[in-house]
Amino acid sequence: MDFTFDERTEKLRRELLDFMDEEIYPVEDQFADEVAAGNRRPAVMAHLKAEAQRRGLWNLFLPDPEHGAGLTNVQYAPLAEITGRSPAIAPEALNCAPPDTGNMELLALFGTDEQKRRWLHPLLAGAIRSAYCMTEPGVSSSDPGNLTTTIERDGDEYVLRGRKWWSTGLLADECELLVVMGVSDPAAPPKSRYSIVLVPADTPGVRKVRGLRMFGYTHGASGGHGEVEFDGARVPRTALLGEEGAGTALAQARLGPGRIHHCMRMVGMAERGLELLCRRALERQTFGTGLADQGVIQEWIAEARVRIDQVRLLVLRAASLIDREGARAARTDISAIKVAAPAMTEWVLDKAIQVHGAAGLSQDTPLAELWVQARTMRFIDGPDEVHRMVVARRELARHRPAD
Amino acid sequence: MDFTFDERTEKLRRELLDFMDEEIYPVEDQFADEVAAGNRRPAVMAHLKAEAQRRGLWNLFLPDPEHGAGLTNVQYAPLAEITGRSPAIAPEALNCAPPDTGNMELLALFGTDEQKRRWLHPLLAGAIRSAYCMTEPGVSSSDPGNLTTTIERDGDEYVLRGRKWWSTGLLADECELLVVMGVSDPAAPPKSRYSIVLVPADTPGVRKVRGLRMFGYTHGASGGHGEVEFDGARVPRTALLGEEGAGTALAQARLGPGRIHHCMRMVGMAERGLELLCRRALERQTFGTGLADQGVIQEWIAEARVRIDQVRLLVLRAASLIDREGARAARTDISAIKVAAPAMTEWVLDKAIQVHGAAGLSQDTPLAELWVQARTMRFIDGPDEVHRMVVARRELARHRPAD
Amino acid sequence: MDFTFDERTEKLRRELLDFMDEEIYPVEDQFADEVAAGNRRPAVMAHLKAEAQRRGLWNLFLPDPEHGAGLTNVQYAPLAEITGRSPAIAPEALNCAPPDTGNMELLALFGTDEQKRRWLHPLLAGAIRSAYCMTEPGVSSSDPGNLTTTIERDGDEYVLRGRKWWSTGLLADECELLVVMGVSDPAAPPKSRYSIVLVPADTPGVRKVRGLRMFGYTHGASGGHGEVEFDGARVPRTALLGEEGAGTALAQARLGPGRIHHCMRMVGMAERGLELLCRRALERQTFGTGLADQGVIQEWIAEARVRIDQVRLLVLRAASLIDREGARAARTDISAIKVAAPAMTEWVLDKAIQVHGAAGLSQDTPLAELWVQARTMRFIDGPDEVHRMVVARRELARHRPAD
Amino acid sequence: MDFTFDERTEKLRRELLDFMDEEIYPVEDQFADEVAAGNRRPAVMAHLKAEAQRRGLWNLFLPDPEHGAGLTNVQYAPLAEITGRSPAIAPEALNCAPPDTGNMELLALFGTDEQKRRWLHPLLAGAIRSAYCMTEPGVSSSDPGNLTTTIERDGDEYVLRGRKWWSTGLLADECELLVVMGVSDPAAPPKSRYSIVLVPADTPGVRKVRGLRMFGYTHGASGGHGEVEFDGARVPRTALLGEEGAGTALAQARLGPGRIHHCMRMVGMAERGLELLCRRALERQTFGTGLADQGVIQEWIAEARVRIDQVRLLVLRAASLIDREGARAARTDISAIKVAAPAMTEWVLDKAIQVHGAAGLSQDTPLAELWVQARTMRFIDGPDEVHRMVVARRELARHRPAD
Repeated sequence: MDFTFDERTEKLRRELLDFMDEEIYPVEDQFADEVAAGNRRPAVMAHLKAEAQRRGLWNLFLPDPEHGAGLTNVQYAPLAEITGRSPAIAPEALNCAPPDTGNMELLALFGTDEQKRRWLHPLLAGAIRSAYCMTEPGVSSSDPGNLTTTIERDGDEYVLRGRKWWSTGLLADECELLVVMGVSDPAAPPKSRYSIVLVPADTPGVRKVRGLRMFGYTHGASGGHGEVEFDGARVPRTALLGEEGAGTALAQARLGPGRIHHCMRMVGMAERGLELLCRRALERQTFGTGLADQGVIQEWIAEARVRIDQVRLLVLRAASLIDREGARAARTDISAIKVAAPAMTEWVLDKAIQVHGAAGLSQDTPLAELWVQARTMRFIDGPDEVHRMVVARRELARHRPAD
Repeated sequence: MDFTFDERTEKLRRELLDFMDEEIYPVEDQFADEVAAGNRRPAVMAHLKAEAQRRGLWNLFLPDPEHGAGLTNVQYAPLAEITGRSPAIAPEALNCAPPDTGNMELLALFGTDEQKRRWLHPLLAGAIRSAYCMTEPGVSSSDPGNLTTTIERDGDEYVLRGRKWWSTGLLADECELLVVMGVSDPAAPPKSRYSIVLVPADTPGVRKVRGLRMFGYTHGASGGHGEVEFDGARVPRTALLGEEGAGTALAQARLGPGRIHHCMRMVGMAERGLELLCRRALERQTFGTGLADQGVIQEWIAEARVRIDQVRLLVLRAASLIDREGARAARTDISAIKVAAPAMTEWVLDKAIQVHGAAGLSQDTPLAELWVQARTMRFIDGPDEVHRMVVARRELARHRPAD
Repeated sequence: MDFTFDERTEKLRRELLDFMDEEIYPVEDQFADEVAAGNRRPAVMAHLKAEAQRRGLWNLFLPDPEHGAGLTNVQYAPLAEITGRSPAIAPEALNCAPPDTGNMELLALFGTDEQKRRWLHPLLAGAIRSAYCMTEPGVSSSDPGNLTTTIERDGDEYVLRGRKWWSTGLLADECELLVVMGVSDPAAPPKSRYSIVLVPADTPGVRKVRGLRMFGYTHGASGGHGEVEFDGARVPRTALLGEEGAGTALAQARLGPGRIHHCMRMVGMAERGLELLCRRALERQTFGTGLADQGVIQEWIAEARVRIDQVRLLVLRAASLIDREGARAARTDISAIKVAAPAMTEWVLDKAIQVHGAAGLSQDTPLAELWVQARTMRFIDGPDEVHRMVVARRELARHRPAD
Repeated sequence: MDFTFDERTEKLRRELLDFMDEEIYPVEDQFADEVAAGNRRPAVMAHLKAEAQRRGLWNLFLPDPEHGAGLTNVQYAPLAEITGRSPAIAPEALNCAPPDTGNMELLALFGTDEQKRRWLHPLLAGAIRSAYCMTEPGVSSSDPGNLTTTIERDGDEYVLRGRKWWSTGLLADECELLVVMGVSDPAAPPKSRYSIVLVPADTPGVRKVRGLRMFGYTHGASGGHGEVEFDGARVPRTALLGEEGAGTALAQARLGPGRIHHCMRMVGMAERGLELLCRRALERQTFGTGLADQGVIQEWIAEARVRIDQVRLLVLRAASLIDREGARAARTDISAIKVAAPAMTEWVLDKAIQVHGAAGLSQDTPLAELWVQARTMRFIDGPDEVHRMVVARRELARHRPAD
């Protein structure tokens, strides 16, 4: 039982905190203003990426030491937390933003040499971006076995037909690759029914339908969440990732660490919210006393601290379990953090908003947009209700009398 | 103790429900699409206004029988609830949208004949719109005595200097009138320090600075929430509403019924959310059963029903108390509903969103935007924390030993 | 829509409040001390009963004007609320305590003349008490159709076999009547499977097994909650209440108004808790300020007021619906209050306890015992979960597309 | 970052779990029955103590390797958790029950040789028990500086005058020692105003006034919570523990690890509750399905697991910080767990009770009594509100601009 980080992690934490202070926070307002004015590629991002590379803060997410930093989940988790403090800028600046991270991980693990050359290398270099197309309109994506998009063999090609949505990053100009999951064998059971193919964004028959807003936000700077139609789009058989029918297994390999990253970024968002809450409370006077001296506000602050620390520990424990025993063994733990982290973050940010008054829900603070990220996480990668069911079933199984 | 509505109210409820079914709901999608496409004046609004006038559903909010429908608060409350089911369209279509309602009420009660002719009549006709400028950036508006904008006498004129924000409707093209509260006598105690003046929107020295977003929404179709600067703007002395120093009293007269309307519209939003929740739950299958058969969803539905009904009753009781004893006597009751209604509505809409999956936070349902309205109401007209303090003090006063 | 009580109710409320002030509150401590010392019949109760009769505050619960006060549910509800402020004494002092109230109501409605003479009259006079034996150990009583106790015809007699528990009042010395529900026709569907018989407490084969504690309380003064075994106990056929197979219908007739009474007493308990909370907060100093001046405590007070008032209105509305349309039409409304009232009361009392520090959970205040009553109500007459299901199904039914 | 226990801890955990299975759980019912029947010293306790000694599971709490097991806080914490699964028996059986543990720790750290011989050794042997007298009626004990009991020097003696309550264990027959804190220098500031003296229970002038009930429970088997009056009781100067004026420092040394123990026992109670909940849910059928298959119950189970695990991690982290940097450095962390652990445990036990129906609040399960322990912990050693204030102030201090 040891609650301290190792030396390498501490060193990277310090370097990353410096990067945040020196490079990220100072450009946040300018970045937001440019985006609000319709500029989807604020010029500063190129500078930030170069700077992150120069400082050795690049591709930290990738456990593969050949292509990435070779950090364990427990080592990377506190770094992901820090990037969560400025989620619209920092993850991309470090080339650690989803869905590229998951896509790069898939390519590093299962890509052929040619697939790595064509897609992984430019992604690792931050030269292109990618989308992950799994969720479909009209069906519950929490229930595997519901997907309807087809990936049909036709000679040396696969033909895609169907519609995907909530494909993060889809609408970015630099998005050149769509990682698409679909039905390759309709008659097979769910675990071998699906395949994943790599689809160039400019393939004929790929039509970007529209952007989806989240509480009014378009998130255009990061490519937003898109809806895309595959109307007979064709890719060669070499576009298959891994084997035919391996789609479900690949998707699950992608999810474990991805959820750790999501949850740790949530912790970072909550810390940012609590920091802004405290600063505002210390500045603001009302009815003759400072907000920071009011009991109700102090109660929020204390609750926030207690909740954040608990979730961080739970996520780190799950990360540690993945490192020791693999993502499969940590399945229930990952469901647990998927429930706990967004709920906590939403709560903390709600209080931070309240302390800021109406400014808290406007563009004058990052709080409202952070809150939307937390709220959204109660769906992404499975709604809370499904993850709670997973945890409950495991718990009940322990007590079920053996027959 | 009688929980039924009187005959006139029931008749108006039926007529209004018909209007919603026949005119409002059918145009919601088109209206939203036009607004999303940048059209701030969807043409259908003119038709809806004409139709509402034709059906006798116009200016229902105004208790003054000369200018309006002459309904009591208890009679109007259930009608306001119904308009809350489509808050972006129905209130304006019936000429019952804030801040025009409050401004018309002030003008009807305290306006000179000339002020009525120039401002009240076109407002009643729906020909122009208006803004209400009270809240200021940088100061806590929950604490009376904080305002800094000055309304200074200079010969036959008043000169305005200062900045206001969260002025709803400010940015609408048809907004011709700004009802502005400011300091007319800096040395006076808060209750006689302020005055209210009527400022034409095109007055030199009035500068519309920017629109404020709420979460990602601009609410441009209804004029949004604006920030405005008064840089030496001049109005004649006849622009004074009521007497000099009467600003606080006027503002309070405006608030009581206004909060009843807000809260009843909240109830309507919650009902809309619950209806959408139920419909989605009945349609959607997951893991082999309908969502409507799942215990957790049923629990949400039951809780929603129980909470909505309680809040509606509390608001109606407050409305009834205003009718019987006036807004001043109902002050604590109004604070109580200001706390209860938004919290309930936010909760119900959150569950409705969750049942819709990611679609619930996109533009594909009205839920996310309704949620933002509820969240916002936890600040508007005073944050929850201040209203709770009002209720608590009154409660404690009952038990304080007489000296 | 009228939120005022009628004249008769107001007069009775004033008289009952006087009775509480003059007779009930002054003896509470002495009563509790005697009970704690093992005296199950504190002598003061006889005095209180006589005084209540003298003041015309007797059998107020009974809508039958021949035997009782002839009040509607809406008229009686605010009186039940007042008795809830001292639930260990006041209801019994007024002869308005369950389960006698429900039993008297059954007898008044369905008893034969002989049954009325033998049981109803002494119950109305407060000369004897009674128990209601429905719930059984080992089966879920929320699911009708689970009961296993049999009431078997054998010539001119019924023979009872089985076990009941949570029979309130069973262990009181004055308990002379057991109203017992059991299976009379095992082959019938639930709605005609059961009958109710009137069993004298001293019938051979009736064995009082033990008292059940609620948390650490025995509630011995009111007869506690008992477990009883029927081991071939025999009663004549004239002991049948109503018709054979009518058990379910009788039980349901009993429940509607009974739940209104329970819920209104809950409201009274919550009011008592809030009053004690406020008084303590006004007296107590800590860290140099009064508790009453602390923001967190004020927040609790405000929340308590808002929650209590909402629940009271909801219960009154349900009472009004029973009066207008009958208990069957009000079924969902009754389920709604059964969920809302105990949850609210538990919350208010928890805060009242917290403000009293450790004293709040000891015998030095009535708060802990009141809290236990509220907690218990989350089971009695069906657990929250079943009532929520009832409400949800009705709500869903409104939106289910007609086939 | 390592979430596994070391070898010694794992070995002790296994041995203790065996002891629970083989010795503790089998006697729980018999123990409870004897206590309910008025036997305050069930004979089985002597056997359990001997068995625990034989197995080397004795005095595990004491970090001093001379007198106790020499375990760190992180090593002892998971063992304290296990004893919390049967808190009425296991802690005493292992000689690890408060307040003896804290008293022994004080004596081991600060006692003179003579004090150790007279009091520590028999306490370590489990031959006598002791009480800790700090809290006073009528004053808020969360505010240091409020105590009024005086410890006055009079020649070679100290004279005690005042009243203490909530002295756990006071009323046990074997309670021979009262560790009493009182004012020795009224003019001094709080941190040097108090002293602690060791008072034999049979000292003239020590009067045990009464037992305090907690939600109806007397907890007589462990000596209950008592009120005691000191009416001129005299002890020699050698009865002083540590130095004069050191009372506050001694009390604080006692609190840090004590709170870790309390909180870990809470975690054990919650685990017991969750286990009983799951077993009941697996056994019980209602409306044709098992409770374990119902979504609402599964949601409770999942939430319980997620909450328990988070609190356990938070407590272990605080224990680890005490081990590394001392109780003073861990002050905020200890306040955090004092808030988090009882709230979580109360929640879990409430749900476990609900799943058991009315049985859950009776003597037929340990749940109601466990719940009372959790509820009580929201006061003991400072109410939640004070601990939240401590956490909030530390958090705010980080963000307060340096002058």
